[in-house]
Amino acid sequence: MSDRAQDRVQRPLHVVVWNEGVHEANQDPPDIGERYPDGMHGAIAAGLRRLLPEAEVSTATLAEPEHGLGSSVLERADVLLWWGHAAHDRVDDAVVERVRQHVLGGMGLIVLHSGHYSKIFTRLLGTTCSLAWRNEGERELVWTVKPSHPIARGVPNPIVIPQQEMYGEFFDIPDPDDLVFISSFAGGEVFRSGVTFTRGRGRIFYFSPGDQEYPVYHQPEVQQVIANGVRWATPDDLARRVPDVSNPPREWFAGS
Amino acid sequence: MSDRAQDRVQRPLHVVVWNEGVHEANQDPPDIGERYPDGMHGAIAAGLRRLLPEAEVSTATLAEPEHGLGSSVLERADVLLWWGHAAHDRVDDAVVERVRQHVLGGMGLIVLHSGHYSKIFTRLLGTTCSLAWRNEGERELVWTVKPSHPIARGVPNPIVIPQQEMYGEFFDIPDPDDLVFISSFAGGEVFRSGVTFTRGRGRIFYFSPGDQEYPVYHQPEVQQVIANGVRWATPDDLARRVPDVSNPPREWFAGS
Amino acid sequence: MSDRAQDRVQRPLHVVVWNEGVHEANQDPPDIGERYPDGMHGAIAAGLRRLLPEAEVSTATLAEPEHGLGSSVLERADVLLWWGHAAHDRVDDAVVERVRQHVLGGMGLIVLHSGHYSKIFTRLLGTTCSLAWRNEGERELVWTVKPSHPIARGVPNPIVIPQQEMYGEFFDIPDPDDLVFISSFAGGEVFRSGVTFTRGRGRIFYFSPGDQEYPVYHQPEVQQVIANGVRWATPDDLARRVPDVSNPPREWFAGS
Amino acid sequence: MSDRAQDRVQRPLHVVVWNEGVHEANQDPPDIGERYPDGMHGAIAAGLRRLLPEAEVSTATLAEPEHGLGSSVLERADVLLWWGHAAHDRVDDAVVERVRQHVLGGMGLIVLHSGHYSKIFTRLLGTTCSLAWRNEGERELVWTVKPSHPIARGVPNPIVIPQQEMYGEFFDIPDPDDLVFISSFAGGEVFRSGVTFTRGRGRIFYFSPGDQEYPVYHQPEVQQVIANGVRWATPDDLARRVPDVSNPPREWFAGS
Repeated sequence: MSDRAQDRVQRPLHVVVWNEGVHEANQDPPDIGERYPDGMHGAIAAGLRRLLPEAEVSTATLAEPEHGLGSSVLERADVLLWWGHAAHDRVDDAVVERVRQHVLGGMGLIVLHSGHYSKIFTRLLGTTCSLAWRNEGERELVWTVKPSHPIARGVPNPIVIPQQEMYGEFFDIPDPDDLVFISSFAGGEVFRSGVTFTRGRGRIFYFSPGDQEYPVYHQPEVQQVIANGVRWATPDDLARRVPDVSNPPREWFAGS
Repeated sequence: MSDRAQDRVQRPLHVVVWNEGVHEANQDPPDIGERYPDGMHGAIAAGLRRLLPEAEVSTATLAEPEHGLGSSVLERADVLLWWGHAAHDRVDDAVVERVRQHVLGGMGLIVLHSGHYSKIFTRLLGTTCSLAWRNEGERELVWTVKPSHPIARGVPNPIVIPQQEMYGEFFDIPDPDDLVFISSFAGGEVFRSGVTFTRGRGRIFYFSPGDQEYPVYHQPEVQQVIANGVRWATPDDLARRVPDVSNPPREWFAGS
Repeated sequence: MSDRAQDRVQRPLHVVVWNEGVHEANQDPPDIGERYPDGMHGAIAAGLRRLLPEAEVSTATLAEPEHGLGSSVLERADVLLWWGHAAHDRVDDAVVERVRQHVLGGMGLIVLHSGHYSKIFTRLLGTTCSLAWRNEGERELVWTVKPSHPIARGVPNPIVIPQQEMYGEFFDIPDPDDLVFISSFAGGEVFRSGVTFTRGRGRIFYFSPGDQEYPVYHQPEVQQVIANGVRWATPDDLARRVPDVSNPPREWFAGS
Repeated sequence: MSDRAQDRVQRPLHVVVWNEGVHEANQDPPDIGERYPDGMHGAIAAGLRRLLPEAEVSTATLAEPEHGLGSSVLERADVLLWWGHAAHDRVDDAVVERVRQHVLGGMGLIVLHSGHYSKIFTRLLGTTCSLAWRNEGERELVWTVKPSHPIARGVPNPIVIPQQEMYGEFFDIPDPDDLVFISSFAGGEVFRSGVTFTRGRGRIFYFSPGDQEYPVYHQPEVQQVIANGVRWATPDDLARRVPDVSNPPREWFAGS
């Protein structure tokens, strides 16, 4: 696997941070505006701009036409980040299928926290993506279990998150390609909190820390993980190619 | 992983062989009735009855009400086999979702040959499941690359299939849990022809040999692989449990 | 993968529990004799006899000639369990190589707790098998993260171990075939406490709970995991075959 | 995973191509000097210099003191390539252990062709690394089965190698992290010809094409794969850290 950004120096990376934006619009919880005055997507985008100055980072939300994910946006996106929670079922199926085709063709996808239940994540993985949870603002420790992985580069071990919603096993996902982080919570639960998948030509990274009720996306170590994930998920080239049926004539390779 | 059939001696295994049955109904190709007088599902079921005398093997086809896959059928099925080709799009979405829930809850699934493009397989895997192909009746060699796997038990290495449709890489699937067989074809192509996946609590085995134009399902070695697959995919128990949200109180485990 | 014991009903399973026996011989810690009057191997063997009545369970220790692992013992063993700590370097290299050949040929191997640093485990895995540790008798919770795996069968989730030595990440092992259990400790650390590997034709299960200072091997849930591991690691047959060079003539398969 | 070379622009990559050099010294086969006037290591190094102009490529052979692999050489090496065949047993065990420590600490390792039986490869993998073989100069086709992997970047699918020794399954290796290439041979055999492993912090790539009897290492596509492998295996940093015992005080993370 590769931080394929390296061969892309001629032009900036194009990164799109998608957030449903419903918690922010509904002021739910009431103090979300103090915590995330530019929305969670704003905080995530700010972290990426700080750590990946070569990237061109934009944001998109559910309320925009086509949820801000029209074909022209996806065609130039190298990596899409996805935060959703309250409105998974309001995401249009046609947009989900469009995103899926781009991922299979090579666009990177970073799914965050409650995005585990999003249509795009469950559609790409095929399982329920169910998990155990409890929201009491308890301490999460994020441990690196694959230190050679580029997503773990420069990340303290563990990352200490003072307050976070608990996500626990059993997490109903297919076996990941790589298990990068395992979290523990004050209650004693564990969770595979950083996992990677390849689907088609696309790379997918799921990272669980981050929530509308806690300032986790302002934490520099969390921003580092997300930026590492973006670099890792960047495709080699923009020529998206969804695998397709081919029917080679026998004489191409037969004989010796 | 386990041939979980072992704990089930009290009652027979329940195995359902599903075939769309369209090639048979349409006499396409014209000689299919000579090759498979009881349909491909009949030949597959006969092999299972021979090799798994403890199993109760039934068949089901597209033309039946609910495609023969009503809730009562699936609730008692340990393992479902799936052959489809000409009519993937005529399989009802509600039936596909019902099958998927049963697989996630623990029912085994064996997907055969052109079933790689079925709704149930692509829905569970999330990718296109595309591949290269060529139908010129060429020799296929099926090599065992994981001899310790129970699906390879008692299987000659290689299995020689005199005539078969070529399926070649790139096969657009997620990395399998286990790669059991790799095939080569007379034209020189290779294919990951025997691969396993776990999704939820269910085990999935894909095996590519077998086609409406060739008598592959009568071949004893092929029948052995399929029977091994059924044993391997059999769940421990019939209490199907799709993973579900749980919300444990903190005091259950906290403290030391 | 398979609980391959199923095809072996004609004769009992042969299981050998190896313990270096040095802590017991040295009464280190002084109360070990109260905790394990028959040694840790005695407690482990008792659990296996209770849960696997079809098995013939014997024990062996470092002090015996050839450490109790002569050729005749290994040739009839289906599964070997290994507990070592204080005397890894006193295990004879020739015995280690003999055990390794048997594992590669198909004998199952269960490595327990401080056996992570044994010659046989590090030789089979190739890495340092280093880990973080702290011995303050803190609570360990053992969570199942692959509920479909036969080693997790009938195991409560989590297993609560009141007092145990902490083993923490980074655990320097190759990526396991299957990650079955993850533990958390009262201090907040996490550990991949139940992992499987295939090497050659042999199956290997590492399980970390258990220590000379705590009565963990008397705990029924721990005994259940170990018995499940033995069943899972049992080879299909006793005809041990270490993979060997073969040189097939070209005409065997060439042409179409 | 990452082509970690990207963060290393400040200084050249240091790549060492090791070849036992025995075939060349013994003129075995007699025409090897025509095929490889600078030895196989010379041809491999020339390919790397062409494709990785940022790299500083040196060579080393068995006949040199410490086989040319003294501590100062390994300490500055980012990636080591290994070709051996006739003299595996003449490689000094102390040198093998030194190389292994560097790999575990992060140095990349590329093992080529008959190096599958080298002490360093079998020591890192733990298995016999046995395979089937036949030397009749038959055509090999190298198929890409993980097109998103950076080692497959810019590589034709398949690579056609007009004449090569056959290497076939069963290849007794642990399940690889990634299976990048599968080869077929004119005789019909298949082989997992491009596989990756992580051991400790180090990345390992095994690639089977290449032999003293055929001009494979002059083939541009083969050189491309090897150069891709070197980039992929390059560590993030030179601060080699073999994982080591750590003993953290409980109060570091306990409590909530």
